[in-house]
Amino acid sequence: MPIIKIEMLEGRDRATKQELVKSMTTEMARITGCSEASVYVVINNVAKEDWGIGGELAATKFPD
Amino acid sequence: MPIIKIEMLEGRDRATKQELVKSMTTEMARITGCSEASVYVVINNVAKEDWGIGGELAATKFPD
Amino acid sequence: MPIIKIEMLEGRDRATKQELVKSMTTEMARITGCSEASVYVVINNVAKEDWGIGGELAATKFPD
Amino acid sequence: MPIIKIEMLEGRDRATKQELVKSMTTEMARITGCSEASVYVVINNVAKEDWGIGGELAATKFPD
Amino acid sequence: MPIIKIEMLEGRDRATKQELVKSMTTEMARITGCSEASVYVVINNVAKEDWGIGGELAATKFPD
Amino acid sequence: MPIIKIEMLEGRDRATKQELVKSMTTEMARITGCSEASVYVVINNVAKEDWGIGGELAATKFPD
Repeated sequence: MPIIKIEMLEGRDRATKQELVKSMTTEMARITGCSEASVYVVINNVAKEDWGIGGELAATKFPD
Repeated sequence: MPIIKIEMLEGRDRATKQELVKSMTTEMARITGCSEASVYVVINNVAKEDWGIGGELAATKFPD
Repeated sequence: MPIIKIEMLEGRDRATKQELVKSMTTEMARITGCSEASVYVVINNVAKEDWGIGGELAATKFPD
Repeated sequence: MPIIKIEMLEGRDRATKQELVKSMTTEMARITGCSEASVYVVINNVAKEDWGIGGELAATKFPD
Repeated sequence: MPIIKIEMLEGRDRATKQELVKSMTTEMARITGCSEASVYVVINNVAKEDWGIGGELAATKFPD
Repeated sequence: MPIIKIEMLEGRDRATKQELVKSMTTEMARITGCSEASVYVVINNVAKEDWGIGGELAATKFPD
């Protein structure tokens, strides 16, 4: 029944997201004993100009 | 004063969103006694490749 | 498959929460066509000193 | 170590976001005593048709 | 830099949380290539009367 | 109309929260041009055993 919300910088491809979802779900079920079927994962792909670290935009700190 | 955050698969049209917002707000006010004017609803339209269920992407599980 | 997250001031009893969960789920399913079984609702009961409106704590604005 | 999540209507430019991130981070560090480097800010730019106030979409209430 | 937010039913002990945090962080870093040091995990322990599934409270569906 | 959600370690007193809410709201209104009255701030006070950094619980990394 757990919900896992991932916020990360945008740009990951579908295969990476699939691997993330699979891994997080398997680990959650293994560690907490919940069923894998009940786990929801939602990914939020954040643009670099929408993420701040230490007061600076990631767009400035990590230019492409 | 409540905030209702809805995460759902993308693709709903504006009329559907309007109906959701209206219904959630009316029900919230009726059940909790808050004013309708104070209710915020925020919808997050999630792409199928950003939603995992049971360890699989919705994009794989429910292809278009 | 939708997730509905409700943030509201703490203090509602279990019957009220049950009514909220039932109503939000039924309406979500009716309006979007998803199954009721797939809807998750998570309630966050926020203390008055953890909610700000217009720059003031709800604890100050709405004392008990 | 705090995380600040901002939900606001879309349309703000990068300079405004930079100013928001800088200001929120500085104020958070000043008031709580945490280091600026540890503060994450994530901005969610919400479309007007995804925001409801008082049961109505912002898209209807505040047309462009 | 990713943020992982976990919502699950309350009642897990500290060792389980430690294992969750370790595993989620390691997997996130392995799969996306980010540094482990940059990963934040926040756990929200939800009471059974604050979680709805299929229109019913977990408190009703899964009594202690 | 913005919503500011703050996740931080628990333990801040009411005066600190009041100052945070005031400052975040004032700055948000000044920078984006929204009204102060429309800004909601919600604080989530996270226990040290519910926060992970770099794969470790804050409870372990920063013992009391």
